[in-house]
Amino acid sequence: MTVDPRFYAPQGALTLGKIAELTGAVLNGDASVEITSVSAAATGRRGDLAFLDGDGKGDVSVGADVSALIVNEANLKHAPEGVPCLVTPLPRHFHGLVAYALFQPRHLIWSGDDRISPEAKVHPGAIVSPGAVVGPGATVGEGTVIGANAVIGPGVQVGRNCRIGANVSLICALVGDKVTLLSGVRIGEAGFGVTGGPAGMEDAPHFGRVILQDNVTIGANSCIDRGVFDDTIIGERTKIDNLCQIAHNVVFGRSVVMAAFGGISGSVTVGDGARIGGRVGIADHVVIGDGVNLAASAGVFRNIEAGETWGGTPAKPIRQWMREVAWLQKQANPKKTT
Amino acid sequence: MTVDPRFYAPQGALTLGKIAELTGAVLNGDASVEITSVSAAATGRRGDLAFLDGDGKGDVSVGADVSALIVNEANLKHAPEGVPCLVTPLPRHFHGLVAYALFQPRHLIWSGDDRISPEAKVHPGAIVSPGAVVGPGATVGEGTVIGANAVIGPGVQVGRNCRIGANVSLICALVGDKVTLLSGVRIGEAGFGVTGGPAGMEDAPHFGRVILQDNVTIGANSCIDRGVFDDTIIGERTKIDNLCQIAHNVVFGRSVVMAAFGGISGSVTVGDGARIGGRVGIADHVVIGDGVNLAASAGVFRNIEAGETWGGTPAKPIRQWMREVAWLQKQANPKKTT
Amino acid sequence: MTVDPRFYAPQGALTLGKIAELTGAVLNGDASVEITSVSAAATGRRGDLAFLDGDGKGDVSVGADVSALIVNEANLKHAPEGVPCLVTPLPRHFHGLVAYALFQPRHLIWSGDDRISPEAKVHPGAIVSPGAVVGPGATVGEGTVIGANAVIGPGVQVGRNCRIGANVSLICALVGDKVTLLSGVRIGEAGFGVTGGPAGMEDAPHFGRVILQDNVTIGANSCIDRGVFDDTIIGERTKIDNLCQIAHNVVFGRSVVMAAFGGISGSVTVGDGARIGGRVGIADHVVIGDGVNLAASAGVFRNIEAGETWGGTPAKPIRQWMREVAWLQKQANPKKTT
Repeated sequence: MTVDPRFYAPQGALTLGKIAELTGAVLNGDASVEITSVSAAATGRRGDLAFLDGDGKGDVSVGADVSALIVNEANLKHAPEGVPCLVTPLPRHFHGLVAYALFQPRHLIWSGDDRISPEAKVHPGAIVSPGAVVGPGATVGEGTVIGANAVIGPGVQVGRNCRIGANVSLICALVGDKVTLLSGVRIGEAGFGVTGGPAGMEDAPHFGRVILQDNVTIGANSCIDRGVFDDTIIGERTKIDNLCQIAHNVVFGRSVVMAAFGGISGSVTVGDGARIGGRVGIADHVVIGDGVNLAASAGVFRNIEAGETWGGTPAKPIRQWMREVAWLQKQANPKKTT
Repeated sequence: MTVDPRFYAPQGALTLGKIAELTGAVLNGDASVEITSVSAAATGRRGDLAFLDGDGKGDVSVGADVSALIVNEANLKHAPEGVPCLVTPLPRHFHGLVAYALFQPRHLIWSGDDRISPEAKVHPGAIVSPGAVVGPGATVGEGTVIGANAVIGPGVQVGRNCRIGANVSLICALVGDKVTLLSGVRIGEAGFGVTGGPAGMEDAPHFGRVILQDNVTIGANSCIDRGVFDDTIIGERTKIDNLCQIAHNVVFGRSVVMAAFGGISGSVTVGDGARIGGRVGIADHVVIGDGVNLAASAGVFRNIEAGETWGGTPAKPIRQWMREVAWLQKQANPKKTT
Repeated sequence: MTVDPRFYAPQGALTLGKIAELTGAVLNGDASVEITSVSAAATGRRGDLAFLDGDGKGDVSVGADVSALIVNEANLKHAPEGVPCLVTPLPRHFHGLVAYALFQPRHLIWSGDDRISPEAKVHPGAIVSPGAVVGPGATVGEGTVIGANAVIGPGVQVGRNCRIGANVSLICALVGDKVTLLSGVRIGEAGFGVTGGPAGMEDAPHFGRVILQDNVTIGANSCIDRGVFDDTIIGERTKIDNLCQIAHNVVFGRSVVMAAFGGISGSVTVGDGARIGGRVGIADHVVIGDGVNLAASAGVFRNIEAGETWGGTPAKPIRQWMREVAWLQKQANPKKTT
């Protein structure tokens, strides 16, 4: 995954020598190598600087083409032979610092009095309601309605026949056709991640995007965060209720239905046709199979196979959960039959 | 309930013959009958087209005056004698299609540069903060304050001495006097409902309203969806905290108090003076009696009689729930006395 | 704590005689004493009117310097000798009425067409995105970015190098340096409190503030309410995810991390370095020690000592909770080993 220049303005390349100077890291390798972008280690490509942080235990995947790594001592052993390394105790922090030297998020450098940027492309068959603003490089397709006081950030692509509600904000996002975002939806904000810096905890930088495929509907005041480097993706015809939270790097399949207060942690995968009841939470990196049903209030901490129905916290197969609820009620209330 | 022309612009009548042509449904009845509006089957009146969907089992109520029904084969038997029927495998989908041919939601056809529409009626004793927009046909009463960058949609009626917060959006709504909406509140969005269409799942169309009676207060970023055809109603002096969700067709009585993260599913009824703790969820169609108390985190799946106090998930009378919690703790931790 | 005139415009002093006239309360004391502000009883100072309400049982703390009290009969005994008292059956209601006679919240009297008030101080090195409004008396520091269609209310102080997202609203707040508020955040709204008035329930008035210290990050669509009279405070480097709710008078220490859907009730204290999982709720007035860990979905009703890890609802030490979960599963599902 490469950083999308529609959302992040490239500031020019940096040599590894310059990066060593900026970060104070010790360089093992050729100082003249040019870095033009940042990525996660596993998906790094030519020109990318990636990082390895943590205790260095367990498997680590590094893309064969990555141009350089910034690592701590514990991870130095994971660097493929011939890949230049910058060594520092705070690799993720300094990777972020380099990222911001290479790219400026366009929504943070957008100013002026133009409600609709002259550099935006709004189809004459689209409606832009009063107070809505459309950033430079954004496109709005035919038949689309942008609600009052909504914000379409720089570079955002909105397809045809979409309904964008009042006070919605959309940044770092690509939106298909016939997508409906009810009022107050937040698309493309940085996800929640904390990294160590010299002065304490810092926000992990995010250079990814949100992809909303055709016919997706998102309920009022729901939030979908952009990926760290990759994309957060919501598949075709998926329907999400009000006040839901979808974290960075989540991938939802097609025709998923999720009721209000659903909370999906980072890097979760949800299969096609899954049905997620109200107030369900799913822990990070969990994989939910196609057609899974989750009962209201379930708290899911494990992968679930396609077609199963689970409930409870921690979630388990629904019959097992119901047996526990019934058994406890019977044992604890011996004289009652309710 | 008839569709309110303040929120939905009538596009003219359609004959049943024309509707059969539009939908491909088979017409049993007089092709010249004129349809001017849409409704639910139970509340259909002269001029309305209603629908019956599903497996046709169980009781079905059809209003005596409804002008026509669009039904699938399984529901044909429920059509009262003499009422013309359009027969199709996807009655709800085609009912929605007819609805959009009869009415255009005004908030989707609102454009232009007027921050306060010349067709709005804002009392000279009201305050409209910078950036707020007020749509055509909207009224704002004496002493009311509209917050900065708020959106008062077309046709919305706001009474006297209301406090509408910053970035609030109000569509398809009638608001009484002394109503307070804190910032980011979303009133009148379409509710969450999924219906089958020829290409897969679609959003169920909503042609109802939200009614907020006098002295209602709604907390920041809370959402109240409009009814499908009827109204979502919040009774006098009801007080709702931040980040709550109230679905379509819910009816709250007077002086209900609901804490943060309350989630009320579709068509729930809550009686006067009920007190709903934080993070309570109530399943659809449940009836909560007057003065009921629900403990924080309760998940309610059944009707509750007036005056009772319930807790737990699934919710039960509070003493029973507390007995279960205490019994389990004691059994599972034999050496502890905590 | 005194009412901050940057957020509440003083309307001039009132004598106790005048207040007795306004409220119908019976005055015990000197009618010529001047009242210039309002406060809670415990923190009352010279010039302040405070109130005592409720059944008068339990301990009551009254500041030595308070100029007068408005009390019901049950609380008259708690009035320190020599402090003038206004006696009424509805002390909190009439205290609020006096508060609004003494102060006008500036965000409710802010109107006009200036997007950026000529009375605001925006540093030339700050960026104000299209559609954002900045109120009179507000300041925006160097290097800060105000997002599109955001609202910076009257008197709000925003430090340097902050990132304020699109459609954020900030009122009654003091914001440090390097603070990040993602889109749709609501800072400074009145908290949730219900008080009895002559006609039924009323909203408790709020005359406090929100303080966000340096390097705080708040996620999209999260809400932080201002204090009743005192401040709601979020300590340095605390990081809060999307869709969280923090009620009035809460105090968070430094470097607290809270995941999505966290709900913190009024007057809770959370120590430095606490880690709060997703969907955790904490009941009002609870004290959480430094470094406490709360598992996802915990519902906390008691104080927790520093360094402990709790989970479950009602929350208990994590091992105890896990023992209960495992024991119940085993007992209720005798043939299974899952």
